[in-house]
Amino acid sequence: MAEYEPLRASLRRIAETEMVQDSAHDLAHLDRVWLSCQHISQGERAGNPRVLLAGSYLHDLINIPKNSENRAHASSLSAEAAALHLDSLGYDESEIQATQHAIEAHSFSAGILPRSIDALILRDADRLDALGAVGIARTFSVAGAMRRTLYHPEDPFACSRDLDDYKYSIDHWKVKLLVLAQGLATPTGQAIGQVRVQRMVSFLEGFAEEIGCELPDAWRQD
Amino acid sequence: MAEYEPLRASLRRIAETEMVQDSAHDLAHLDRVWLSCQHISQGERAGNPRVLLAGSYLHDLINIPKNSENRAHASSLSAEAAALHLDSLGYDESEIQATQHAIEAHSFSAGILPRSIDALILRDADRLDALGAVGIARTFSVAGAMRRTLYHPEDPFACSRDLDDYKYSIDHWKVKLLVLAQGLATPTGQAIGQVRVQRMVSFLEGFAEEIGCELPDAWRQD
Repeated sequence: MAEYEPLRASLRRIAETEMVQDSAHDLAHLDRVWLSCQHISQGERAGNPRVLLAGSYLHDLINIPKNSENRAHASSLSAEAAALHLDSLGYDESEIQATQHAIEAHSFSAGILPRSIDALILRDADRLDALGAVGIARTFSVAGAMRRTLYHPEDPFACSRDLDDYKYSIDHWKVKLLVLAQGLATPTGQAIGQVRVQRMVSFLEGFAEEIGCELPDAWRQD
Repeated sequence: MAEYEPLRASLRRIAETEMVQDSAHDLAHLDRVWLSCQHISQGERAGNPRVLLAGSYLHDLINIPKNSENRAHASSLSAEAAALHLDSLGYDESEIQATQHAIEAHSFSAGILPRSIDALILRDADRLDALGAVGIARTFSVAGAMRRTLYHPEDPFACSRDLDDYKYSIDHWKVKLLVLAQGLATPTGQAIGQVRVQRMVSFLEGFAEEIGCELPDAWRQD
């Protein structure tokens, strides 16, 4: 992908200047999404590298906090903000539209159905970054910033209480992260996701042992 | 240990009321330290359960932030604060002194040498809680609360730069966490520590793969 390096550098500089970063949405996140887009694109023998590159680096231009009611609009606003840059980078109208759609449809909260292979690849790549070891690091980091407790001390895996991921970091795994892999669309994304979910379940097994309890089966099978 | 349950409940209530909690120093941390104290005590066939119980639940009564210059005094202040409660719980003078010493000497920053088996057990138990899956969860949670970046995007494992754990979460693993196991004093603590460090190295190997690089050997052998 050496031929795309100058374009990648330009897109990364735009993100560096304009994106409001946090520990889960920083330049390294964008680098990882681009890395996964390349893996999936190669695996599927599909996808437009210029669209995927712009989607990877500009999809989080507008970062709205998780607990804000405007969260669902972040991807549409990012798509608009991205389009303003693509013309000057030499993207033609159809590439700009394709990138805008991929950015709009990448988000979990927006609920927009991806209608192109590029949109499916970008969404899978972004979701994969919430899984595996990186996903573990990101979720605890975000939970720490939001002052959440790691787990309910008497009932860590919510055997006899409702899940509450506003209060407990580990609850967010069951509410969102462990089911995220089920929404992966491309076979290559699914294969990578399976490895990453397995990595998370192994982590949870160690975690359960260290806190002196058993990991319930319901946390293993998602 | 059912005979100690009423005493444990009383000590836990004191911590609940007086300890300033954060995501790494909460009641669940105290429960885990007590759990590890019991494992080590059983493994070593040594230790006074009353001293270990008081040490587990009162060792972090005074919690001074990691970046404060008074951090090194936290354990001495916690020991003093603990002593005020132990008399009314029926501890005799020698138990109070033994507990105070164990609390004083548990801390990494204080640099006080543990002179009793109880002090060694408590220190090992507290250090074990910084390792393994729980250690991973705690360190990213604290780093997130301190708004640290996960890793240096161009040189994640500091191959050609100085480590900077004020800036990068992952750097803290190399600066402190991975070497912590080397300071474990009891054979039982060392055996548990080995399992937990292995768990962290496995995590790092997955992490490295996901961000598209190799884990350097120097991060594997500590």
